[in-house]
Amino acid sequence: MPTDAASTPDLAALALPHVAALHAYTPGLQPTEPGWVKLNTNECPYPPSPLVAAAIAAELGGAEGAGGEGASLRLYPEPTSAALRAAIAAHHGGEDSGLGAANVCVGNGSDDILNLLVRCFCGAGVGEGGLGRGADSGAPNAASGRAGFSLPSYSLYPVLVGIANGQSVAIEFDRTMALPVEKIASSGASIFFLTSPNAPTGVGFGEREIEAVLAAYDGLLVVDEAYAPFARESALKLLARYPRLVVVRTFSKAYALAGIRVGYCLAHPQVIALLDRVRDSYNVSRLSQVAALAALSDTRYYAGVIRKVAATRDAYLARFASEAGWFTYPSQANFIFTEPRTRGGEMGAAVAQAAYDFLCERRVLVRHFPKHALTAPFLRISVGTDEQMLTLWNSLQAWLHDA
Amino acid sequence: MPTDAASTPDLAALALPHVAALHAYTPGLQPTEPGWVKLNTNECPYPPSPLVAAAIAAELGGAEGAGGEGASLRLYPEPTSAALRAAIAAHHGGEDSGLGAANVCVGNGSDDILNLLVRCFCGAGVGEGGLGRGADSGAPNAASGRAGFSLPSYSLYPVLVGIANGQSVAIEFDRTMALPVEKIASSGASIFFLTSPNAPTGVGFGEREIEAVLAAYDGLLVVDEAYAPFARESALKLLARYPRLVVVRTFSKAYALAGIRVGYCLAHPQVIALLDRVRDSYNVSRLSQVAALAALSDTRYYAGVIRKVAATRDAYLARFASEAGWFTYPSQANFIFTEPRTRGGEMGAAVAQAAYDFLCERRVLVRHFPKHALTAPFLRISVGTDEQMLTLWNSLQAWLHDA
Repeated sequence: MPTDAASTPDLAALALPHVAALHAYTPGLQPTEPGWVKLNTNECPYPPSPLVAAAIAAELGGAEGAGGEGASLRLYPEPTSAALRAAIAAHHGGEDSGLGAANVCVGNGSDDILNLLVRCFCGAGVGEGGLGRGADSGAPNAASGRAGFSLPSYSLYPVLVGIANGQSVAIEFDRTMALPVEKIASSGASIFFLTSPNAPTGVGFGEREIEAVLAAYDGLLVVDEAYAPFARESALKLLARYPRLVVVRTFSKAYALAGIRVGYCLAHPQVIALLDRVRDSYNVSRLSQVAALAALSDTRYYAGVIRKVAATRDAYLARFASEAGWFTYPSQANFIFTEPRTRGGEMGAAVAQAAYDFLCERRVLVRHFPKHALTAPFLRISVGTDEQMLTLWNSLQAWLHDA
Repeated sequence: MPTDAASTPDLAALALPHVAALHAYTPGLQPTEPGWVKLNTNECPYPPSPLVAAAIAAELGGAEGAGGEGASLRLYPEPTSAALRAAIAAHHGGEDSGLGAANVCVGNGSDDILNLLVRCFCGAGVGEGGLGRGADSGAPNAASGRAGFSLPSYSLYPVLVGIANGQSVAIEFDRTMALPVEKIASSGASIFFLTSPNAPTGVGFGEREIEAVLAAYDGLLVVDEAYAPFARESALKLLARYPRLVVVRTFSKAYALAGIRVGYCLAHPQVIALLDRVRDSYNVSRLSQVAALAALSDTRYYAGVIRKVAATRDAYLARFASEAGWFTYPSQANFIFTEPRTRGGEMGAAVAQAAYDFLCERRVLVRHFPKHALTAPFLRISVGTDEQMLTLWNSLQAWLHDA
């Protein structure tokens, strides 16, 4: 490539100004060398159902019946992940719950679904006056093109809005993490992303709380339920009564399949049809479709995985709160959000950073979010195996001793 | 879901107006039942390298070394596909060609790469006056935010521009399919997509022709080389001298891996950095990264596949032109674009449609593009195995006899 700077034009200047000014989303570290206790990206500490590897092996064995190993990979995937959409609808109750394949969109991870939602409902150059539709448009409110989300929450939402050159409306939680229903209702956003259980706090919102938002807010409410399989409640039952509700799920956490990139949403068929218009035709690979289908079929295995993770979580929630005396939110997810406290009673961002660094040196990887006042004093610890959690616990004891 | 229409708001009215008005891209049919001679989506008729299935099986065997079959799938993929970027750079000459991992971006299929390019360089609400930058911006021209492409060409480009609410500049070929260099140069587009070999014609553009475009046009030139492994020439060598050049490639065609969804581009590191800002963090699954790496390592196998496909293509190009007497473009791709002609000498859109329908009834699937005057009289036939091509040929003979 040219190294002569004089001959290289400013290529970023050819790009859209808002893109040239973007910062990329920072994913959690994915160390490739072995030896880490990796508790930083909320992956499942247990392997996926053995049916997954078996289904992939069967697909490689030649679903086409000709040409030998891996022959079917020469063909494009089914464009809509049709079999998977039907299986997902059935998994969530099917016709009894009023759900069919037309209520499902499958993405290349749930991040793909979140991106499609932003692209459909959040746009550039929309002023205070909304999108300029008349009162006869039938819309429940004039679409503003703005996207709302709470802080703290999943940090991808503002990144996606930035890429779309859209306007963000950030609603601040207070330290209680109680749902700010009225602030959401008056946000003026066309679409609002609510994570439940929330990240990185783990605080879950019940069906009644979600319903209170739906009653007060007249835009599209996206409840991002990436961690809901570990929670007591879900917004799923509300789908039957609230066509403005979208529920997003993923195979990355409870299904132990972060590596295959499959997520989905459940919504009114009108919303699904919009997402399909902006979706890439072949967004989910053949092997990912096959893997997700196999995982869905093994409900018994996953019930066991979820039970184990929740038991470890609850044991360590208790341990952090009572034994260590650290303030810890009542997590309904597969992670723990806790506020490190030295033996001298010090807390805060610098203390959390010191604990993080100490753990890092011992090759225990957790997550620290220093950019928000409500998250900076905390660490987010993904729930690992009991053995991993004991390593973490002992490392924190050593830190307390040293600090 | 609610069936009471009175209670269902007009959800599309909540969406951005340009999204509500979109039509989805129409991919080629992907019949799931067996028995079709499928020559409609330019898939490879031969299976991928056996190393691909072996590499996937090895990954499933437990790259993590713990937890049994498929255990590594619980972990997120490497976010940048780093090993694959390095291997792709090396495959195209590496340091000798001035190419390193910083010159490569990997996508969830090359459609993902095309989408990222549109999102970076083509935007909404940009008027004739460009993006409003001053003359001191260092840009080679004021970025217009418009995206250009030729007609006919890959029909996804205008779809992606539509999703981005951008402005399209379509440059018409004439029936010679000669490259309209001057029209591209004066298109005013910030980014221009040129497919070489072109789809659906199969006509390839040589290095000199591409260089003529680069010399005359001052925006970003994307040469979409999905079919280049079957062609005599490529634009790759020009990368060293033209930082405004982006070359897009795919594993879907020559690598017989349409099912795994991996594509990539080679470009200046500044362009790659922009794409990475709008790219999803985990856009390529673990298994897809592993599969593509294995495929890249088996150059000998793929040289054989490409030779076979090209030989079948050349045999049928000759057959269509001389035996059938049908006008047929000199394809450098893995498909043939030919103009059906009845024994009575009739040609045109209706004749092509009749031939298509006749083939369909016999479960031979090809592609007909009726929407453009230059493509409507033609059929695009993906090059299959010799056996598949004989079935196609005999079916067309039967049609000629019947018609």
